[in-house]
Amino acid sequence: MKHKIGFMGLGIMGTPMAANLLKAGYPVMVYNRSPEKAAPLVQQGAGLASHPKALARATDVVIAMVTGPEALGDLLWGPDGAGGALSHSKVFINMSSVSPSYTRELARELEPTGVTFIDAPVSGTKKPAEDGSLIILAGGPQDKVAELSPVLLAMGKKVVYCGAAGQGSMMKMCINLLVGLMMEGFAEVLNLAKLGGLSQEAMLDTVFSGPLNCGMFQVKAANLQNNTYPPAFPLKHFTKDAKFIVDTAFELGAPVPVAHTILQLYRTGVAQGWGDEDVSAIAKVLEHLNPKA
Amino acid sequence: MKHKIGFMGLGIMGTPMAANLLKAGYPVMVYNRSPEKAAPLVQQGAGLASHPKALARATDVVIAMVTGPEALGDLLWGPDGAGGALSHSKVFINMSSVSPSYTRELARELEPTGVTFIDAPVSGTKKPAEDGSLIILAGGPQDKVAELSPVLLAMGKKVVYCGAAGQGSMMKMCINLLVGLMMEGFAEVLNLAKLGGLSQEAMLDTVFSGPLNCGMFQVKAANLQNNTYPPAFPLKHFTKDAKFIVDTAFELGAPVPVAHTILQLYRTGVAQGWGDEDVSAIAKVLEHLNPKA
Amino acid sequence: MKHKIGFMGLGIMGTPMAANLLKAGYPVMVYNRSPEKAAPLVQQGAGLASHPKALARATDVVIAMVTGPEALGDLLWGPDGAGGALSHSKVFINMSSVSPSYTRELARELEPTGVTFIDAPVSGTKKPAEDGSLIILAGGPQDKVAELSPVLLAMGKKVVYCGAAGQGSMMKMCINLLVGLMMEGFAEVLNLAKLGGLSQEAMLDTVFSGPLNCGMFQVKAANLQNNTYPPAFPLKHFTKDAKFIVDTAFELGAPVPVAHTILQLYRTGVAQGWGDEDVSAIAKVLEHLNPKA
Amino acid sequence: MKHKIGFMGLGIMGTPMAANLLKAGYPVMVYNRSPEKAAPLVQQGAGLASHPKALARATDVVIAMVTGPEALGDLLWGPDGAGGALSHSKVFINMSSVSPSYTRELARELEPTGVTFIDAPVSGTKKPAEDGSLIILAGGPQDKVAELSPVLLAMGKKVVYCGAAGQGSMMKMCINLLVGLMMEGFAEVLNLAKLGGLSQEAMLDTVFSGPLNCGMFQVKAANLQNNTYPPAFPLKHFTKDAKFIVDTAFELGAPVPVAHTILQLYRTGVAQGWGDEDVSAIAKVLEHLNPKA
Repeated sequence: MKHKIGFMGLGIMGTPMAANLLKAGYPVMVYNRSPEKAAPLVQQGAGLASHPKALARATDVVIAMVTGPEALGDLLWGPDGAGGALSHSKVFINMSSVSPSYTRELARELEPTGVTFIDAPVSGTKKPAEDGSLIILAGGPQDKVAELSPVLLAMGKKVVYCGAAGQGSMMKMCINLLVGLMMEGFAEVLNLAKLGGLSQEAMLDTVFSGPLNCGMFQVKAANLQNNTYPPAFPLKHFTKDAKFIVDTAFELGAPVPVAHTILQLYRTGVAQGWGDEDVSAIAKVLEHLNPKA
Repeated sequence: MKHKIGFMGLGIMGTPMAANLLKAGYPVMVYNRSPEKAAPLVQQGAGLASHPKALARATDVVIAMVTGPEALGDLLWGPDGAGGALSHSKVFINMSSVSPSYTRELARELEPTGVTFIDAPVSGTKKPAEDGSLIILAGGPQDKVAELSPVLLAMGKKVVYCGAAGQGSMMKMCINLLVGLMMEGFAEVLNLAKLGGLSQEAMLDTVFSGPLNCGMFQVKAANLQNNTYPPAFPLKHFTKDAKFIVDTAFELGAPVPVAHTILQLYRTGVAQGWGDEDVSAIAKVLEHLNPKA
Repeated sequence: MKHKIGFMGLGIMGTPMAANLLKAGYPVMVYNRSPEKAAPLVQQGAGLASHPKALARATDVVIAMVTGPEALGDLLWGPDGAGGALSHSKVFINMSSVSPSYTRELARELEPTGVTFIDAPVSGTKKPAEDGSLIILAGGPQDKVAELSPVLLAMGKKVVYCGAAGQGSMMKMCINLLVGLMMEGFAEVLNLAKLGGLSQEAMLDTVFSGPLNCGMFQVKAANLQNNTYPPAFPLKHFTKDAKFIVDTAFELGAPVPVAHTILQLYRTGVAQGWGDEDVSAIAKVLEHLNPKA
Repeated sequence: MKHKIGFMGLGIMGTPMAANLLKAGYPVMVYNRSPEKAAPLVQQGAGLASHPKALARATDVVIAMVTGPEALGDLLWGPDGAGGALSHSKVFINMSSVSPSYTRELARELEPTGVTFIDAPVSGTKKPAEDGSLIILAGGPQDKVAELSPVLLAMGKKVVYCGAAGQGSMMKMCINLLVGLMMEGFAEVLNLAKLGGLSQEAMLDTVFSGPLNCGMFQVKAANLQNNTYPPAFPLKHFTKDAKFIVDTAFELGAPVPVAHTILQLYRTGVAQGWGDEDVSAIAKVLEHLNPKA
């Protein structure tokens, strides 16, 4: 018997993720604040709930994929919120990106309902969501995560078990920090190489031929070459995440000297008005400091 | 007609590189300060020169792969040095790692001889030297680099043309900087993740499954997991390179805020006595700053 | 007619400040959670209130000098709190160190009472509190600050008007940041000088003879010379303030590259277990990174 | 019997320093590459040498105050250089700002002449040179420094003995580093305060009233207020010194995390075209990173 899935949040990520659940044969009921976004999924066979509570009542596994804490709070605890229909026989999986501390707070709020709570943010953006190749970073009871792995693997290629609820988010933050560190490093070296008279083509050719080659550099190189930064992961979102992770490191007493250095560089990028461009626009911050011609 | 190759410097890198030239069918004459190191190559068919000048007289293309400027200076301009036998009908290729400024100085010193000078440091260490999969970063006259590509490709899998003599070294320095930035970033994030309660296995699993995965992380992860750092690229050598590249950036006026930050971290590693361990021992510098238990 | 003053919080700072108000001829009523601390002031002529509300009822100008937001919240809004007795005919002056954002929140909470609210944290510690030589950093309505200046100048040598309520705290945070930057700079240079073979005496003699000489260096030099750091301003308190100011700078988008750098150094000091020593123990963080002998 | 003084280098600093020697009653002979600059001193009673060698022959104590190593090398070892006339009965005092390593090299070069060599750079610029209130940072044999103190004190208010020849320069570099750290800190805090809504007047008033008040802040505040930076100590000169001191720290293994951070900020200032403005123009680097209006 397949789980009945309730899916809330039909944005750029949520829509293909719900579609992949349908393709895998799960019965899926969806909810979105703007119901017109649900139409394509309804055509593919999804049911449509009139409000989150109705969705939670009618399904076993309730998944949320929304923009942040406020939207999530509304879905759960607003009028006709899903929270009122969660119970110990159900599972609630939050796949939205939120902080570990918010996740732990959420776990406490959900406790009285008896629901099994799993936090499962994803590594990957639009394309992997469509391809079902997301990496799913799961926190919560290990047996429940294992039991629900087939559901998760309908949306992603891998589930990494990270520990108690909140640790999925912690993992996501760590990965995002590494994204920002490597992106800045890539931009810093390319900018230096250019000022040192090397062609960007030769530089990229060298990086791509050796042990530093990675998927992210492959994807972002064109932005740096064309000096245009269409937003896949907006610089301001990364900056918010980086602030969060630096704050977390501060609480832990973890030494993060480079995270501090890049945080102020990315923040400068936002201050200069480039927050809506891609995270790779950190290159513009460095160029802003280049010698005047 | 294949070029007659003279190869000077039979260390960890030079020996397999010369062997690969022999395998590719080139006539090779070798020279090494300690002549006993030449024995295996002589068995494979190489000729043995009694001094650098003899080697340079007897060959068309003279290659040097030694530890640095001093050793190179001795080979070229010491008693019976190769310099005295170089002429406009010959090619001299320096594959040793030296700075761009030293390379440009060398180019000026060689100019009166009329020799064609190519600087061609390599990206890759022992294993790629043995496999013939080095990346060769070549600076010098573009037509000559093209003409000599078959020789270079006997030792490597790719030749990247970088510009005038000195730019091969510049490229190498840029790549090394990226190595150091990424290595520190990897160590910083893994250390933070551990203090934040994530298992190193889960963290590595996540990195290796996504777009940040790269060959270097694959190779160095075991060091971080086992907390042992057998030297592939010694931390003190990287630190010397990093100092050089930061100095170069200073001259160029290139903004390298993170290079500055990591330079002092790596220097601290040397000061703490870890210079002979692998560059990945930067992890120990961060642990040294971790909260006392 | 002199204002009737109510003074809450009789710690290291509050006791001498209240005593200076008495000396200046003001009628003073005091309150402290542990009433035994009030005895010396009662001997000097102060009245003793049994709870904050009684104090606020009986006086015109209510001053608080406590350890932070929690203590302040209790005094104002706890059982028999002063908040219930504040009205538009009275003035409330918070001299405790709290953040600008907390101060603005406090201003909103107090608004319904109609009380005039002034935030007036101080620059200076125990000795200036005793001598009446504090610098008072005042935020609030400018005319009211002017009117109350005689009261403030009974406790300090100068009142700096900083703007609306909250700006006194903002000023305090900025001054504390400068303290931390200069203290780290002083320690960094002295440590370098020592490693470079200069005697600490000669170094200090030079600093003290020139345009960099300042009161803080004079006071802290002995700590660095003796390598003992008795807490005047504990390192952990500075670290908390520095985190706050870096967070504020982040919100404002203000570039604070050095504040970021020192924040992680001071945080490392706390992580190493030196948080209860003086802020000048930042010298120990640098020594921890010195070359192993 | 007063020493006969030879003074080479009559720039902004040298001219008033030589004048002060004359005022103190010393017989002074001067030399300058452009002899017209010597006219005012000749009017005050100085002798004029036609070349450095003549000057060194005719005097006991030869002082140099020139722009750097090249000028100094010319004076000593160029045609008719002073070097040829130095001997064990004479003293050579270099007061020009040069590096400790250059100074040690100079000491080795002078050794064969038998001359007593003292390095004595100064802390202070034009005004203190005129007032005779320079701080003189002396390295060399301690007894000779003591013997020559009256000569030095004719030009300054204090002589700090720093150790062997080279340590005077080391001290100067350390003091300059502290100048740069404090100047950046002052600018960083003032910029933050302004973005946080504090008036610059209130901020300065607070700094000047407390234990952070120092002569340098007093002198530089007007630059920051008026946003004009007339060069007293040009930003590019400080940047050169800072590079030197960071290099020295690197050699020593001394941890200088903030020096690294500020070095790249000052270097950015030069790259932006502000190198000829005063060191306090570091404020412009921070403003360049401020949020776009």
